[in-house]
Amino acid sequence: MDRRKFLKGSALLSGAFTLSPASLWSTRKQIESPGKNAKNIIFMISDGMSLGTLTMADTYSRNILGKGSNWLNLYREKKVTRALMDTASASSVVTDSAAASSAFGGGVRVQNGVLNMGTNGERHLPVWQKFKKAGKKAGCVTTVTITHATPAGFCVNSARRNAEPEIAEMYADLELDVLMGGGDEFFNFRKREDKKDLYASYTGKGYQILKNSNDLKNIMPGKKILGVFNTGALPYSIDRMHVKEFKDTPTLADMTRAAINQLKGHQKGFVLQVEGGKVDWAAHANDVAALIHDQLAFDEAVKAVIDFAEEDGNTLVIITTDHGNANPGTIYGNNATEHFNSISNYKYTNEYLLNAIHKDYSVKDITDWIYEGNKIRLNDDEARHLLSFYNGLEKEEGLYNYKKLPFKWYSEIQKKHNSVGWISMDHSGDYVEVAAYGPGSELLQPFIKNTDLHFLMLKAAQL
Amino acid sequence: MDRRKFLKGSALLSGAFTLSPASLWSTRKQIESPGKNAKNIIFMISDGMSLGTLTMADTYSRNILGKGSNWLNLYREKKVTRALMDTASASSVVTDSAAASSAFGGGVRVQNGVLNMGTNGERHLPVWQKFKKAGKKAGCVTTVTITHATPAGFCVNSARRNAEPEIAEMYADLELDVLMGGGDEFFNFRKREDKKDLYASYTGKGYQILKNSNDLKNIMPGKKILGVFNTGALPYSIDRMHVKEFKDTPTLADMTRAAINQLKGHQKGFVLQVEGGKVDWAAHANDVAALIHDQLAFDEAVKAVIDFAEEDGNTLVIITTDHGNANPGTIYGNNATEHFNSISNYKYTNEYLLNAIHKDYSVKDITDWIYEGNKIRLNDDEARHLLSFYNGLEKEEGLYNYKKLPFKWYSEIQKKHNSVGWISMDHSGDYVEVAAYGPGSELLQPFIKNTDLHFLMLKAAQL
Repeated sequence: MDRRKFLKGSALLSGAFTLSPASLWSTRKQIESPGKNAKNIIFMISDGMSLGTLTMADTYSRNILGKGSNWLNLYREKKVTRALMDTASASSVVTDSAAASSAFGGGVRVQNGVLNMGTNGERHLPVWQKFKKAGKKAGCVTTVTITHATPAGFCVNSARRNAEPEIAEMYADLELDVLMGGGDEFFNFRKREDKKDLYASYTGKGYQILKNSNDLKNIMPGKKILGVFNTGALPYSIDRMHVKEFKDTPTLADMTRAAINQLKGHQKGFVLQVEGGKVDWAAHANDVAALIHDQLAFDEAVKAVIDFAEEDGNTLVIITTDHGNANPGTIYGNNATEHFNSISNYKYTNEYLLNAIHKDYSVKDITDWIYEGNKIRLNDDEARHLLSFYNGLEKEEGLYNYKKLPFKWYSEIQKKHNSVGWISMDHSGDYVEVAAYGPGSELLQPFIKNTDLHFLMLKAAQL
Repeated sequence: MDRRKFLKGSALLSGAFTLSPASLWSTRKQIESPGKNAKNIIFMISDGMSLGTLTMADTYSRNILGKGSNWLNLYREKKVTRALMDTASASSVVTDSAAASSAFGGGVRVQNGVLNMGTNGERHLPVWQKFKKAGKKAGCVTTVTITHATPAGFCVNSARRNAEPEIAEMYADLELDVLMGGGDEFFNFRKREDKKDLYASYTGKGYQILKNSNDLKNIMPGKKILGVFNTGALPYSIDRMHVKEFKDTPTLADMTRAAINQLKGHQKGFVLQVEGGKVDWAAHANDVAALIHDQLAFDEAVKAVIDFAEEDGNTLVIITTDHGNANPGTIYGNNATEHFNSISNYKYTNEYLLNAIHKDYSVKDITDWIYEGNKIRLNDDEARHLLSFYNGLEKEEGLYNYKKLPFKWYSEIQKKHNSVGWISMDHSGDYVEVAAYGPGSELLQPFIKNTDLHFLMLKAAQL
């Protein structure tokens, strides 16, 4: 029988196969699992991840670790649908993380700096609140403060993203089921300006409080979790590997597995945001080892999530970023590959390396220390120039650069050795990568606005 | 009848629907056009196009011209399959255009600088030669010299990409059906070192020679074409718009339409490479107006090609780049959108602007000229600094920067006004975007190596 005729003869298929490719994906999924909703949703955000960051992490993984990244292996194994996403905010072609998370979280583009609030004070109901109302459990896991813009954008309304002490209180009112990250200063009465003891409030509401990796291994099942593992953000992944005092903080994958364990099994399902928040901070600092290793830590969390989702079969996973940052990339030259691979010699972030330098260091001290940290041999001029930032002769400004350390200057020195460049120390307006796995992934269109993901989640869960 | 059961009952479909998503695409296409080969292939390369370049051209098009770019509209309209592509060469994570074109053209990764030759002198048969042998017509159209690395990589073997005078001779031997671009110096006996008259050789082989836009409108049907419209590359698109002496050179879309017209209708079909070669040069020069307008000119060629392919129905179109370059992007800041949109005030490329400055310009002369070209008001320090490049006090090096003009310095000045940054003045190793339309597009996998496109073309045409 003629194949085309056979198919045309089917009333069902004659419709399906005149549809666009994207519709066909939908057909495939419906056929694999007819009418299946996403019971659970895990939304993964590598904050501030330019395509170059994804590329470099995959290249590093292949060249140094001998395997492709988990994110791109999902493409290699044809397990996901993909999109390119426009990340603009209401106020700019280049978004901040608050407006970006609000786009996903509230379904409406807002001004930079704002969480789910319109210019006339309109409040857009955050998506994790929608899902809580529908009976699902909800949580957020991040490597920065748990009250930071990206988790907050899925949970609360606030005219200022910086209102982190207040956001810590809002979370308690919402009774979110899992909260893990940094930010002790927003919960600890000794560190809060208003001296409120938020840990006591959370305990009073039946939460268990986790403070370190050991606590994470001894979770009471069924009980809500507030895990605050550091003051400020969690340490960068590469520093956790090599600095003793940081070893006790959990990895993003550790937290993610623990969160999933606690949330799964709930009859009405769960929603979870997983943020690799310091990928963005590393890009702001043009700190290449911080960037690549935190992207790889995010990638380990991708594996943890997909392992669960594959077994579960009812979980929609969205993997993306909220915006580009600094557009890093490897640069053409005679030894580009060797240069890039030399990043595997780096033991510390530039943050740790530069913070450890004292103003009374000699040229030899500083040269030895940089060699110890990066296997880069500074010449005397470079060492003297670096020292000038510590005796007050020079300084650098920049977001998250509280101590005015020479991140920019030092990344320029590293560039000569590792062939990685950066366009700036801030977010970029590049369109970004989105991948989706599981029920509802068929709804992902090839080109989307960030707000589309809000409605995709609702539709996938048939809310 | 239960839908799943019905489908499971079909022997044909029970196989098809256990396949991966990519295989299903294949099923779709086969069903739409069972057993259909790509009779024609058009391979479009925006040379050196980072994702930021694609993003900025689309953003510019939306903000200033009021419509999305043709490339991304194909995504918005769900007409294409997409992939992310690893562009590395045999010698580096960052390729040059010769190795990149050889990957597509010969199906084997070679060292940077080389066209389809292995390290032991192995010669990889270029893909347009394969298609010529199969009876198809073949051509190349570009905005740089027609003997440049990207067209050459589909046509010839050469140990040196710079052997352009020899490559011009090789093309004549291959009897390629359409050749259009720049490079008069490689054909004109007055400009060739060996004084060979290549135009006479081509005429002797039955070619018609085109020299300007008017010739392009008066093509003799059926006759082979050598169109050489300039010495060196063709002018940048934005300069063609505003500089009288450049108006006579055809656009990439003009050449593309003429090439398709000449090639179509051949019984065994045709293959055509279309290159936006100066997108790469603009990135090398960090020349934002050159970059965006040449990307938009490429985008107009995309429209010309898709218009033909939609009508034809037998044409595979591949749209991609050979590698990133400079990773440009818009940068976060208070006026990022207004800054970016101000590029619509630019009348000239930086190349034209900086070339027009004389060393005897006054501070006022130079300030007026920059204002005339970019609506940017230099302060006196900036104007004096700019002048210092013309009186020999300062200079810049760089690929394609023959006159050592201050491209880097001036792009830093512009950055303060247009919020666009660059990581370098050279290629990047970022993975890049690929789109495919038409029969054979279903073969495109979500993550590929550049060499995969060689085999995709052969398979699509069932060669």
